[in-house]
Amino acid sequence: MTPLEKTIQQISPVDPAWIEAARRRQLELTKPPGSLGRLEEIANRCAAIRASFALTAAKPRIVLFAADHGVCAEGVSAYPQEVTAQMVLNFLRGGAAINALAGVAGIELKVVDAGVAAGLPHSEELITRRAAAGTKNFCKEAAMTELEMHTALEAGLDLAAEAASVGCDLLGIGEMGIGNTTAASAVTAALTDRPVDDVVGRGAGADDDCLARKRSAIARALALHAPECRSPLGILRCVGGLEMASLCGFCLGAAAHRIPLVTDGFIATAATALAVKVCPASNDYFFAAHQSVEPGHGHLLAMLGLEPILKLDMRLGEGTGAALAMKIVQAAIAAFTQMATFTSAAVSNR
Amino acid sequence: MTPLEKTIQQISPVDPAWIEAARRRQLELTKPPGSLGRLEEIANRCAAIRASFALTAAKPRIVLFAADHGVCAEGVSAYPQEVTAQMVLNFLRGGAAINALAGVAGIELKVVDAGVAAGLPHSEELITRRAAAGTKNFCKEAAMTELEMHTALEAGLDLAAEAASVGCDLLGIGEMGIGNTTAASAVTAALTDRPVDDVVGRGAGADDDCLARKRSAIARALALHAPECRSPLGILRCVGGLEMASLCGFCLGAAAHRIPLVTDGFIATAATALAVKVCPASNDYFFAAHQSVEPGHGHLLAMLGLEPILKLDMRLGEGTGAALAMKIVQAAIAAFTQMATFTSAAVSNR
Repeated sequence: MTPLEKTIQQISPVDPAWIEAARRRQLELTKPPGSLGRLEEIANRCAAIRASFALTAAKPRIVLFAADHGVCAEGVSAYPQEVTAQMVLNFLRGGAAINALAGVAGIELKVVDAGVAAGLPHSEELITRRAAAGTKNFCKEAAMTELEMHTALEAGLDLAAEAASVGCDLLGIGEMGIGNTTAASAVTAALTDRPVDDVVGRGAGADDDCLARKRSAIARALALHAPECRSPLGILRCVGGLEMASLCGFCLGAAAHRIPLVTDGFIATAATALAVKVCPASNDYFFAAHQSVEPGHGHLLAMLGLEPILKLDMRLGEGTGAALAMKIVQAAIAAFTQMATFTSAAVSNR
Repeated sequence: MTPLEKTIQQISPVDPAWIEAARRRQLELTKPPGSLGRLEEIANRCAAIRASFALTAAKPRIVLFAADHGVCAEGVSAYPQEVTAQMVLNFLRGGAAINALAGVAGIELKVVDAGVAAGLPHSEELITRRAAAGTKNFCKEAAMTELEMHTALEAGLDLAAEAASVGCDLLGIGEMGIGNTTAASAVTAALTDRPVDDVVGRGAGADDDCLARKRSAIARALALHAPECRSPLGILRCVGGLEMASLCGFCLGAAAHRIPLVTDGFIATAATALAVKVCPASNDYFFAAHQSVEPGHGHLLAMLGLEPILKLDMRLGEGTGAALAMKIVQAAIAAFTQMATFTSAAVSNR
């Protein structure tokens, strides 16, 4: 059995009896029934994920996977490809948005080179799990080989196992990769069977010409790879990205280790959606951080049946939405575990 | 000049030039333009409020005002009035939802007795600023006297001044008071000129009979006090609450001291709306934490032109929405102040 197959075998849906039990517990806490709204629903699902009321969210971690995309050769991004490596260095020096947001939320950030094209200087802060030096241009050939895809998936599995082994109890994901909204749009079109125009947005800021090139590249790629795009792993291999493969593995690993995972924006959610298509039972372990302004994001969330925790018109990736939403998950868990009951606090119930 | 008049005189609208300057600064930070969505808008307004780019949110505080409501005699709440005092004790012991949420967010919580009917045992943790032992039943007479209203308003002004004097740089508000959604609904109907049915909800969980009594009580009160309800302070005095008067004062005090203030749910927002009606320039200093499920809340937010930061179907009050949203404001400020620029990080711009 491959590591991926082994992981899938470890994943089982959460037991709905835990959700029911958590609902009953919520009624004992000193608040009107249901008055914490979505916080209650989040805590209840966390109880089912952990199969415990003794929930913690004391060791939250975001893992950010960076990689490059061969499809950049088609002129699909407003930024040059070198920005991927430059932003990785920015993450390592603490100058990016995710550093500020994870910092203020008290969330540990791990940065992974999952296949950045340019060489990166050695750094103790950087986890190097490169399956390749970026993907191939998927308008001309498959984005990656079978071996590259499995190597990238397994990097994600390994990092989830490592997070579990050090006691991480809440995980988030992030990504960086110039051109990766194009890959995520191709994955989304293939997964949801929606027309390309419905799932393509301006990414980091494509102008009209760039947007037209993006649409054309995706349409050509989906036509070229149509026979392979009937399975989620075929989609991932042909039109996905190395960071998406690693993220997909990381999501599945989190589910196997029964750790709640908060996804992020469009690209991260495309990887989560691939994980769910590969293993439908994993869906119970995932929370949608936010809904970005990328049009494909909403379609993915609808397919997953996940209601975003936040809607703040963000479209940055990096795990920035995850960082904000993980704080909400922590709050939900804090209320569930720390609140007094009507009996213990001697508060009159209705 | 009264303390209230003095405070109003100190409040001036923010300078839009600061918002423009902050927008330009955002463009230099290592992210696609506008990609942090509402976080950018929040940080830009904070820069205008503080008239500075050196923003901090290191000393956040929520002040929670509790008081009782004479209108409870009309059977408008699902809970007995004694719950107000019981919940204050719960706050002081750390067992309520706001304790858990403020705790996880690292926000200081101050609890104020602004007029709880039952006597509360002395506690060093409790700030006692009682203008009266609860309001009168506003179906029969004005909720409070002029003196009581000004005493309660001034408690809020004083607590805002105290927060400013110890360096609080981000404020939130919360409230507790059995029956106070009835008062807030009456205030909302009077402020927005909407029919009673549009602004009355189930509060902490009114059943159909209770809801009918609530509507009837509000309609009778608004008819009784119609001549006085032409000014915001008339509305506050006749159909408001002591906690709402203190909250109104606290909002105005925050604006006078140029501290960003995050409002909370329906009752807190009714107090914020009163503050804005008393002094329209104060509106620039306020952020809407969330939109609760109380129908009147949306009408107040629309009147104020405030877009809620969160929508989590909450309806608890206590400052629980403020605690969550203040974390988003802190994140917005952290991104604005801590991110590298394209130049400093040597990241290629478009």
